[in-house]
Parts: sequence; C-alpha cells; structure tokens
Amino acid sequence: MANEIDFFFFYGSTYSYLTVMRIDQIAAQSGVRVRWRPFNVRQIMTEQNNIPFRGKPVKMRYMWRDIERRAGRYGIPFLKEPPYPVDPENLANRVGVVAAEQGWCPAYTKATYREWFINGKAPGDPEHLPVILEGLKQNPNAIIEQANGQATRDKYDAETESARCLGIFGPPTFVVGREIFWGDDRLEDALDWSRKR
Amino acid sequence: MANEIDFFFFYGSTYSYLTVMRIDQIAAQSGVRVRWRPFNVRQIMTEQNNIPFRGKPVKMRYMWRDIERRAGRYGIPFLKEPPYPVDPENLANRVGVVAAEQGWCPAYTKATYREWFINGKAPGDPEHLPVILEGLKQNPNAIIEQANGQATRDKYDAETESARCLGIFGPPTFVVGREIFWGDDRLEDALDWSRKR
Repeated sequence: MANEIDFFFFYGSTYSYLTVMRIDQIAAQSGVRVRWRPFNVRQIMTEQNNIPFRGKPVKMRYMWRDIERRAGRYGIPFLKEPPYPVDPENLANRVGVVAAEQGWCPAYTKATYREWFINGKAPGDPEHLPVILEGLKQNPNAIIEQANGQATRDKYDAETESARCLGIFGPPTFVVGREIFWGDDRLEDALDWSRKR
Repeated sequence: MANEIDFFFFYGSTYSYLTVMRIDQIAAQSGVRVRWRPFNVRQIMTEQNNIPFRGKPVKMRYMWRDIERRAGRYGIPFLKEPPYPVDPENLANRVGVVAAEQGWCPAYTKATYREWFINGKAPGDPEHLPVILEGLKQNPNAIIEQANGQATRDKYDAETESARCLGIFGPPTFVVGREIFWGDDRLEDALDWSRKR
C-alpha cells in the first residue's frame, strides 16, 4: 500500500497557495498519496486566540514578501497581493468538503487558488464560484446547494474536530500517523517522515 | 569582499537554538560571513501584540516537537524541553551585546544555548552566567558590570531599533541588504539570496 499523508488546509490560508500548487507533484515523486482535507481553521484559531496577521501590519507585510520569494523558488506565479481575508461564510471551504467527498478536490482547490492569487478573485465569492465550478464541469447550483446543506456542514465540523484532536492549529498542516507538520515549509519533512515509517 | 548576512536573535528564542548550532558551518560552506546581532525582540513583539506561545498550549507543544524533529534532521542534540521563558532581565542578551562588540559572541552564544538546551540552565541565570563566562576565559564580574552599564543598554536599544526599522518582528531573522528572512527554516534562503547579489 502506498504511503499516505493528510493535507489539512483552509481556503483563505495564504501560505497554502504554495502547497496547493506543488504538493501533487512532490508527493508523487515521493510515492506518497495525499488526502485533501479542508477544515475550519478559523474556528480553531479563534478558540486558541491565535491571530497571526490581523492587526499586525509588519508581520503581514513580511508574509506577502515571503510568499512571493518562496513562489519564485518553486516556479509558482505570484503577481501581486490578492484580496485578504476571504471566504467569510466558509462557502469555498464547504464546497471543498463536497469536492473531497466526490473526488475532485485537488482540481477545485487548484482552480480556486489560481483564481485567487492570479486573477484576484476571492475564494467563496458568490459571483465567481459558479464560474470555477462550471470550469470543472460541475453543476454550480447543485453543488452550492449541497455545500449549504446540513450534511456538508456536519462533515466540515467533523473534519475540524479531527484536526483539533490531532493538535492542529494552523494551515497548511500535514499529518503522518500521529505526527503533525505545520507550514508549507514542512512538506518535505512530512514526506520524509512518511517514507521512514 | 565576502558576502555578509546579519543574524538577529534573542537569548530566549527557542528556534534560534537550531540556528546558533549550525549557522557558522553552513555559512562558511556558502562563503558568507555572519554578523551576530542580539536585540530585544521581546520589546518589539510586545509593541506589535505578537504573542506566539504564551497562553497557546497547543501551539507551544507543537513548537517543542518541531524543534526536536528539526534538531534530529540537523544532528543537533535535543534531550528534553528546557526551561521557558527565560532571561526576564535581558541580562544574557546584554552580555551578548558586549560579546559582539568584543568579538566572542559566537562562542558565548553557543555556550549559552548548549547550557540551556542540554543542561537545562536558563540564559541569564545569575548563578550560572559566571560559569559560562569563566569557561570562555572572560572575567564574569567585569563583563556583567559592563552588561549592566548604560552604554551597553544604549547599544542594545540601538540594535533593537535597527531591527525595528528593518521590519523584523521575530527571532531568528537573517538580513541581506534590505531583505529579511524570518525563522531558522529560512537560513538557506537567506544564504542563497546573499550569493545571488
């Protein structure tokens, strides 16, 4: 059986852009399978009073510059600072939960992040989300209705609770067994760990 | 002239342990000279309401585990969680300012971090600091008197102001020209940047 890592992330996490754009390729090179798991990190961060950027302009400025430089290292496009924060209603995230259940989460997530970082369209934007879904040959009305339904909300909460139990506090986080690795810059560590097991 | 990077750090920063134990070797391999610059990041973090670990037990637990794993990657010893937080009076830091002026900062810093992480002796501990200084063939009373003097306090404040002006908000930070790189995990990026210039 192939090694597997869980990729916990949140549509709205800036650093996750780097991971979303590179994880499939690097994991495949390592022979590792990736499970894409959207969760409500905003709720966990609020519970833990973990506020990395809001009201912290110096740290925020650094974050964008750091992402720009890291994107350059990886050959990932970075044009300018995209809108932030985004997805106030967690709609992009709940669509991600549906997509994960139906097997098209990687494509949806990459499309969402490309639109966000390259075209400046915020994840979950109710005007733009249908365009993304159509691009993936999905039925926007049906998917959005499902994303707004109770079953999806419950599943999203359950994924958040799984993350909480693992000690996850920020996105992206990679899980290998009971080990968690926080940050795009720990992806290689997580893959190495998974190969060692 | 050799390329140079500035290494801003704080005796009391946990992640700086990794950098302190490896920067000389990795910078030398890159042909880069390192300027060791202790500064009062605690003051800057207080100003910016940047509280990474206090009151955040989940994140704190992860931090120790992450340092342990990273130390393993680098072949740096990690036995158990050392005392934290430390150096309430900034004494270890002001001794670091004196050491930097006199050219023995790397040796003092490595000795201080080894004692902290391996023997559990907190930086700036007034009972243990003289032992460290004696081990470096320094006169403890003279050095501590100098570290407590106004000229050293002014120099420490000036270094903190330099860091503030550069947009530094956390330790360790590496500076190459006007570019700042935050975190032990950006040391390689900083060295690469310095070679590109």
